[in-house]
Amino acid sequence: MTAHEKHKEHAPKEVRFYVITISTSRYEKFIKRETIVDESGDAIKESIISEGYKVVGYTLIPDNKIKILRAFSEALDNPDVDVIISTGGTGYSTTDVTVETIRKIFDREIEGYGDVFRMVSYNDPKVRSASYLSKSTAGIIGDKVVFLLPGSPDAVKLAMKELILPEIGHLLYLVRGK
Amino acid sequence: MTAHEKHKEHAPKEVRFYVITISTSRYEKFIKRETIVDESGDAIKESIISEGYKVVGYTLIPDNKIKILRAFSEALDNPDVDVIISTGGTGYSTTDVTVETIRKIFDREIEGYGDVFRMVSYNDPKVRSASYLSKSTAGIIGDKVVFLLPGSPDAVKLAMKELILPEIGHLLYLVRGK
Amino acid sequence: MTAHEKHKEHAPKEVRFYVITISTSRYEKFIKRETIVDESGDAIKESIISEGYKVVGYTLIPDNKIKILRAFSEALDNPDVDVIISTGGTGYSTTDVTVETIRKIFDREIEGYGDVFRMVSYNDPKVRSASYLSKSTAGIIGDKVVFLLPGSPDAVKLAMKELILPEIGHLLYLVRGK
Amino acid sequence: MTAHEKHKEHAPKEVRFYVITISTSRYEKFIKRETIVDESGDAIKESIISEGYKVVGYTLIPDNKIKILRAFSEALDNPDVDVIISTGGTGYSTTDVTVETIRKIFDREIEGYGDVFRMVSYNDPKVRSASYLSKSTAGIIGDKVVFLLPGSPDAVKLAMKELILPEIGHLLYLVRGK
Amino acid sequence: MTAHEKHKEHAPKEVRFYVITISTSRYEKFIKRETIVDESGDAIKESIISEGYKVVGYTLIPDNKIKILRAFSEALDNPDVDVIISTGGTGYSTTDVTVETIRKIFDREIEGYGDVFRMVSYNDPKVRSASYLSKSTAGIIGDKVVFLLPGSPDAVKLAMKELILPEIGHLLYLVRGK
Amino acid sequence: MTAHEKHKEHAPKEVRFYVITISTSRYEKFIKRETIVDESGDAIKESIISEGYKVVGYTLIPDNKIKILRAFSEALDNPDVDVIISTGGTGYSTTDVTVETIRKIFDREIEGYGDVFRMVSYNDPKVRSASYLSKSTAGIIGDKVVFLLPGSPDAVKLAMKELILPEIGHLLYLVRGK
Ligand SMILES: [Mg+2]
Ligand SMILES: [Mg+2]
Ligand SMILES: [Mg+2]
Ligand SMILES: [Mg+2]
Repeated sequence: MTAHEKHKEHAPKEVRFYVITISTSRYEKFIKRETIVDESGDAIKESIISEGYKVVGYTLIPDNKIKILRAFSEALDNPDVDVIISTGGTGYSTTDVTVETIRKIFDREIEGYGDVFRMVSYNDPKVRSASYLSKSTAGIIGDKVVFLLPGSPDAVKLAMKELILPEIGHLLYLVRGK
Repeated sequence: MTAHEKHKEHAPKEVRFYVITISTSRYEKFIKRETIVDESGDAIKESIISEGYKVVGYTLIPDNKIKILRAFSEALDNPDVDVIISTGGTGYSTTDVTVETIRKIFDREIEGYGDVFRMVSYNDPKVRSASYLSKSTAGIIGDKVVFLLPGSPDAVKLAMKELILPEIGHLLYLVRGK
Repeated sequence: MTAHEKHKEHAPKEVRFYVITISTSRYEKFIKRETIVDESGDAIKESIISEGYKVVGYTLIPDNKIKILRAFSEALDNPDVDVIISTGGTGYSTTDVTVETIRKIFDREIEGYGDVFRMVSYNDPKVRSASYLSKSTAGIIGDKVVFLLPGSPDAVKLAMKELILPEIGHLLYLVRGK
Repeated sequence: MTAHEKHKEHAPKEVRFYVITISTSRYEKFIKRETIVDESGDAIKESIISEGYKVVGYTLIPDNKIKILRAFSEALDNPDVDVIISTGGTGYSTTDVTVETIRKIFDREIEGYGDVFRMVSYNDPKVRSASYLSKSTAGIIGDKVVFLLPGSPDAVKLAMKELILPEIGHLLYLVRGK
Repeated sequence: MTAHEKHKEHAPKEVRFYVITISTSRYEKFIKRETIVDESGDAIKESIISEGYKVVGYTLIPDNKIKILRAFSEALDNPDVDVIISTGGTGYSTTDVTVETIRKIFDREIEGYGDVFRMVSYNDPKVRSASYLSKSTAGIIGDKVVFLLPGSPDAVKLAMKELILPEIGHLLYLVRGK
Repeated sequence: MTAHEKHKEHAPKEVRFYVITISTSRYEKFIKRETIVDESGDAIKESIISEGYKVVGYTLIPDNKIKILRAFSEALDNPDVDVIISTGGTGYSTTDVTVETIRKIFDREIEGYGDVFRMVSYNDPKVRSASYLSKSTAGIIGDKVVFLLPGSPDAVKLAMKELILPEIGHLLYLVRGK
């Protein structure tokens, strides 16, 4: 049994996720009661469930600093949440503010998440150099872990499958110190 | 008419305040449904009303990063609020986290507020050197102004009377650029 | 002879100033070839000359990050300049960007300049609490000293007379290490 | 048509580049009117032209904070410039100051550019571990994009071909919000 | 009994100080075994003793980042020390590095100490505008409090008498949370 | 001869290393005089020696900010040391503080070391996504180079063999400017 396998023995069996989709266009449709397709939000939820974990909450908000702070702080204040995953707002368009807003409230940033995600993205021939245009990152707030994913469904699936789901149990164990 | 007097002509006639008391001991009493005396919160409200301005909201929260972020982000998301004033958690006890938490979400810190407040406090013979043990500060988020006041009723009254109420109309005018 | 008097013996006899007025309204008049009154820029120049020092350059620019960076970098690259003094853009209106722009290129910020300036301003009964609405500051870049003054002529006169001219010779001596 | 292909439809057809070579040794030769070979500057220009884009300006400066600030601020103030590319000063010798100087004036750093560039460099067997000795990075200032490349001709060619030219049109589209 | 008087009831009766003099000229004399006069270090020790507190250690070091880090980390690692007071290296000469070095290892900076100290200094007619040329500050590391005082004996006496000795007992009580 | 080969000609022939193991569990055994196995510290020393370089010092300390600062500052103050390598405390458990403590005293961080190390780790099939849970980094302090390695023996061997030993001679040459 390797050290990594040993660590994983300590991982919690149940992990409870809160999903936040950040998309002004979808939010405006929602406000007008039009039909919304949230492919990335759905892909996050499916990957969580297919791993045997639970989705305990979901919200849809626009690319707005205050709405983002409010949605995250409500999820952080929910004792039934272990992990928060957002999708959207991590690029360089003038409206993207997810990382700028949430990074500042991290107790500790998981500073290697972003570069490993970009490396894995670069290795996808459909992404290649576009990988450097993401500032997707992750961090720890209290005893919860937060991942800020891009808006693209492919990016979200890659991040969940290759990076987040394989480590989340062990990471929660580390962060909680027990 | 001086430049300052001219500036004040542009000040909005109505200013709407949201008051947040940050005090673990009072919050615990509140949770147990015991009687709470919130002398500093009350002093802020009285000074607002006696100036002819309005109090549009109030909440009581403990010295907890997540509860503080949540209370401020809800007040920031309220279109009826112009100014947020908190009391408590601005000193150097191990539980004080108000400034550490909210400063990071300021768009711009009003960096001179803290030193001018400490100077005015120092000039009160009952405070003197204790003035340097406050990190009370202020900042701008979106088109709202936020002041983080100490927990002491005397400090709160001094700040409202000498610094905040005389400038708030002009400051909102500046911040809103119109 | 006190220590301060002794220090002043080492001060350079000649000090060469570059003055930068930052004011969008005056710049627009200048572009349209209208008559400009630059009371604050003039007050700075007069106080320099009446102290027996020299003004070796002057420019007028709008409240624009790039124009500000360009004007300062050209003055910094001029070997005939010892001190750069700007006026304007140090407050909290949405267009004020002088401090945000230049502070980041300081090698060392003279972090006490701002609070001492606000204290001296507060003591003027015409200013009082408005003093905290300035983020006027100063810093060192290479072997030059930079002061970022407010746009008001009264503030400029106060800063030059009470804070800058009494110390500039000694400060240049310190900064140059010889 | 993939999302990336769709995005690229919006890219501007013409992109105008300003090239800055930062090299004390070449600058000293230039001052003495000796012949200069600027292989990296030339490689940048050739790759721009062969992509069908334009070089609208070029300058050669030494490894000096003030000269660097001045050259960049003049290029930033030029309305005919869309992108600034520099070469040199991105390593760990005591004279390298390009990144330290320009990073601070970025409105937003393209924080993923550096790690993706190092990954691509590492994959070149002639570079391998030496890749971590570069702090080459990129950022956004106003509506312009800035890339700070290393001094080596091979590194410059790699960055232009694999990372910058494939994305620059789309990136300008994002940054300009239209 | 005021709130401040009540707080002071909790102050520890015994406070143990470690004094560090930072002065290249005195250190060089010490290395050459010449006689040293350390007027500021002596003034700190006398003020501690005359207040009834204890001096448990003293060292003399040059204006050198590594020597400063080493001296402070040894004092911080000493369980018999409650407070560390240094004198020297807080100004703007090219050799002054005390604040730049130690500020970064503060868990929390007592950010109001510097401005209150400069205000008190300004009020001394022998100092006046020279007050802004100090970046003297204070901070908390673990359960110890650190003050970085200027090198001048007058400044040291003022800081000890007016700011440090009146608050140190209460401050230690706050910092230790018990 | 490539540019990299040419650079390596200038590398110092002798490089002197100081090794610091940061491990609370091993430190507690050491204090109780129990037998300690320090596989990672030993792996570092072996790789240094097998490259023909020298180990001039070693210490074992717990995951404690003050002990870490003290150990590093003593090694930094030792004129016989060129490079400091630590192992341990670079992850996200609640006790890990090595990077948080030492990063702040870097004169310059070698910001690309961390992402290149994570890339190389990711490529090891036994590590893969766990690579992003390291914040291992490196930096320059004075004329010394510091590497903060993880606690795992495999990670330490990888870093020494693939990244540190191939570059250390050239890096010292760069940093020392001669
Ligand atoms: Mg989006
Ligand atoms: Mg309190
Ligand atoms: Mg103005
Ligand atoms: Mg170079």
